[in-house]
This record gives sequence, structure tokens and C-alpha cells, in this order.
Amino acid sequence: MKIIDSPEIIQKKASEFKAQGKQIGFVPTMGYLHEGHEQLIKEAKEENDIVILSIFINPLQFGEGEDLDRYPRDEVHDQTVAQKLGVDLLFFPTKESMYPTESAIQLSVNKRTNVLCGKSRPGHFDGVVTVVAKLFHLCQPAKAYFGMKDAQQVAVVKALVDDLNFPVEIVPVATVREPDGLAKSSRNVNLNDQERKDAPVIYAALQQGREMIRNGEQDLNNVKTAVNTFIETHTHGKIDYVELLSYPELENIDRPKGQMIIAAAVQFEKARLIDNQVFDSHGAVTIG
Amino acid sequence: MKIIDSPEIIQKKASEFKAQGKQIGFVPTMGYLHEGHEQLIKEAKEENDIVILSIFINPLQFGEGEDLDRYPRDEVHDQTVAQKLGVDLLFFPTKESMYPTESAIQLSVNKRTNVLCGKSRPGHFDGVVTVVAKLFHLCQPAKAYFGMKDAQQVAVVKALVDDLNFPVEIVPVATVREPDGLAKSSRNVNLNDQERKDAPVIYAALQQGREMIRNGEQDLNNVKTAVNTFIETHTHGKIDYVELLSYPELENIDRPKGQMIIAAAVQFEKARLIDNQVFDSHGAVTIG
Repeated sequence: MKIIDSPEIIQKKASEFKAQGKQIGFVPTMGYLHEGHEQLIKEAKEENDIVILSIFINPLQFGEGEDLDRYPRDEVHDQTVAQKLGVDLLFFPTKESMYPTESAIQLSVNKRTNVLCGKSRPGHFDGVVTVVAKLFHLCQPAKAYFGMKDAQQVAVVKALVDDLNFPVEIVPVATVREPDGLAKSSRNVNLNDQERKDAPVIYAALQQGREMIRNGEQDLNNVKTAVNTFIETHTHGKIDYVELLSYPELENIDRPKGQMIIAAAVQFEKARLIDNQVFDSHGAVTIG
Repeated sequence: MKIIDSPEIIQKKASEFKAQGKQIGFVPTMGYLHEGHEQLIKEAKEENDIVILSIFINPLQFGEGEDLDRYPRDEVHDQTVAQKLGVDLLFFPTKESMYPTESAIQLSVNKRTNVLCGKSRPGHFDGVVTVVAKLFHLCQPAKAYFGMKDAQQVAVVKALVDDLNFPVEIVPVATVREPDGLAKSSRNVNLNDQERKDAPVIYAALQQGREMIRNGEQDLNNVKTAVNTFIETHTHGKIDYVELLSYPELENIDRPKGQMIIAAAVQFEKARLIDNQVFDSHGAVTIG
């Protein structure tokens, strides 16, 4: 595995691989790799000739008070994981090399953002699409892997690729879960014992919502109310949102139609957990 | 020469060429090809394995009242020219295929636009960078060719490529001129006989300005005044602007420094002509 910090060099390497007819799979991350990331790398490894993993804590996607400086880092662990999983190139740039001058070009996202977690993070997805566009141009993947844990990010990146015709396929990767259903997250360590016992309820509630649609429920408000009640009854967490939207458009719908997402965010004492499930109008799981 | 109207197919072809190790040169145009375009194609042909020419009248870069519908077209002539010059793929998409849905992603340009012609065309360059980004993703060139006649467009596209790390080299191509120095333009046919006789004065005036700097003039206002006076004295056209700026940053400077552009726009009865010259602080021509 080669570790490369220079944008110019990673771009040159990627161009060389492409000229040799090699297909590049790309996994963009902010580091502090967990099993969710490992799953992205494993899928990339299976489906491509070359795997590039990037680790870059993108300042542009952090809002005020979102504590960019306290984002967790563990470079040694990350390199060990990348090496173990057969990553070919680890791209690990500085923010100075990624943003050397004040940009003349601004990318902004006007759809899919004012719902779910995006509602409380203005500008967040502008920063995401900017860094993703830059990383795609540098690493030149045929396929890029994103975890469905952040389904809204997948939807926004899909819009970026579709609207601007990037020659990249976005591969959504199913959320990795604990045996009891809780979505893996580095935030789970911040749950106390009781909260950890309660937390799988979120996923169970989302599945209950999906089940209602599978059984023919047409009123989506009934579904959201049931999911809300289920979570409230079985946890001490405070519900931030339970939403049911079209996917990946993330628009309000008034009855089951096309592909949908049901998603929830729950605030526990020291951890805010999110989870979601994507499924079709018959309640059958379509992604993840 | 293959004529392709489908974005999906041109992207697939481009990907195949790249996987074969072939270098793609790209010439984006709005059609109605003249000698300026021919020069772009010739340079692309010399420096690449495959040349893709696009013809697309981009609605996004036309403002209100800019008469998108009256933009000149001559598909038969354009195809003949492209064929004659050895273009490999002519990409000729419809606007419905380029903009199939309302975009969720917005590209905007915050620098280099509020001067020269950009001053009177708000939003124009947002439309330019959007279509250029899309075309670059579809045609996947190593090099893209733009005429220096529109030096501001070259500067803005350069910002796009640099800020977002596109794996594309922007090749600025010198303005093609008549023997008397007048920049070739499809608008020149709209000059009456006297105006046509006067019009080369624009280029002569810009060269006089450059000559002043070569001879040590440090006050750029003196240079601009001299160019203004020269044009006013020798033509009946109305000067829209004479500007002297850093290039490609297009920022005001107070003395000769780095690379600069001197540019003028002159309104004749039925034609508005623009021209420019790029040079260094010693007055030596650097591009074109």
C-alpha cells in the first residue's frame, strides 16, 4: 500500500491506472475507520482492480460549533485497517493542499437537503459535494462506495453525479449492524448501559413501519405515528425526527409510491443516533 | 467521423478510449464554426489520439433578452468542417438530454466575472461552468481547447479546473486574425464598409498599450487613456470598455505586475467587437 498526500500525485497515479485499463474503486472517508468503512473497502476490493481510500476531514462540511477540531483521529489504526484489507493507495491530503486558495467556484445543493439531518446543518451538503467533486476528479473512480447509514449523503452525492454527468457509479452499501440490529457507529460507545439496551429499538421501529406498509397501510402519517410511539415507549431517548420520504429524491409523499425511506434520529444523553431503511411501495427492502 | 447525440454513449465511448490508453482532446463549441474554431480543432488534432468536438447551444449561459433562439446554426457546414479536419467524434446533444431534470446542484462563479463582458452578463459564467463541467465528465479529455478571443471564458474555465481539480489541461489558443489584425469573428460580417476599415484599430490600440508598458510606463491609467483615445480617434464605434487587469485572476492592479490582459469592447452600428492581448510586466506577449 502506498500512502500519498499530494493531490497532484494521486491524480497522476489514477490517470496511469486508467490508461492501463484498470478500474478504480474509491472509498472516501474522514478516517477513524470502523466496521462500516471496512465493509465499503471490502466491496470496493471485490469489484475493482485498484482501490483508493481517502482520509480527509473536510473542513467545508462542518458548520459553526460543529467542532471540526474535536473530530476523532487514529492514523495508525486507519493505516493498519487499510493495509489489512488490501487498499492499494491511501490518499491522505492536508487541508492546505485540498484548498490552497479561496475558491472562485461554488457548488451548492438546492434539493434533498432541507429534510432529515440536513435540516439542522445548513451548508453541510454544499461542503460534501465540493469535496466529493474534488476527490472524484483526483481519484477518477469508476465506482465510489458510500454507506447507507448516511442515506441522505448517498442521495445528495447521487444528485451530484447525475446532474453533472460524472463518469462514476455510486454504490450504496448496506449499514453494518450489531447482532441485535443496532447500526454500528463510533457514537455507540457514548451510550450508557440502559441506553445501549434500548437503542436497537430504533431499527426495530423502522422495520415495524416498513411492515405496516407491507401489510397495506396507505396513510403514511399512521406509519410515522406508530414508529414514533414505538421509539418513545421503549427508550428514554428524545426523538429528533421520524420521517418517511421518497428516495433518493427525499420529497414528501402522501401515500406509498416508488422507492421510499423511513428514517429516525434519536438523542440520547451523550449520543445522537440515526438509522434508516429504504424499501419499495410494497414494503420490500431495496437497499441495505 | 461518428456523430453522437446521446450523453450516455459519448461517455461510454470516451471511457473505452481512455481504457485503451488513448488521450482525448476536446473542443467545446456552440457550432457555426469559423476559422477560430478550426484552429482549436487543428491543435487538438496535433496533440491527442482522439478528438471530440461538441456542438451545443447551451441555454444556461444566455440571459434574458440574449436571444438564444436567434443564435446562428449551420449543421451541414459544421459537419463538413469537422469531417475535413479529422474530428473523431462529433457530440451533438439536445438540450433535453443535457438537462433532463431540474438540477439539484448549482455551480456558481464568484471571481473573475464582474469585469469585462461578464459585468453586463450576470449569471452567464455560471451557465458556462455548468455545461463545461458536464461536457468534461462526458468527454473525459486530457486537454480541452478554448480560444483566447474570449479570454475571460478561458480564465473562468481555468478557475473551474483548478478549484475542483479536474484532470484536464486547459489549452488557450491564440486568436485567429485577418491580415490587418482584426480578430476573426462571425460578427464581422455585420460591419459596414467604413467600420470594417476602422475595426483593425482595436487590435492596434491594444498593441500600442502593450508597447507603452514595454517601454516602461508604470501608470496603467495612462495606458488605458491612450488606448481609449486611440480607438476614439480612429473609429466611429462607441467604446464599451477598455480594461487592464491581472490575468487570469482578472483583478485590478495599480502597476505592471505578473501576467496582464488589456481588453476592449467597441460597439459599432450592428456589431459589438471584442479583442484582447495577454502579456507580462515587460510587455512581452505570453498567450496568443
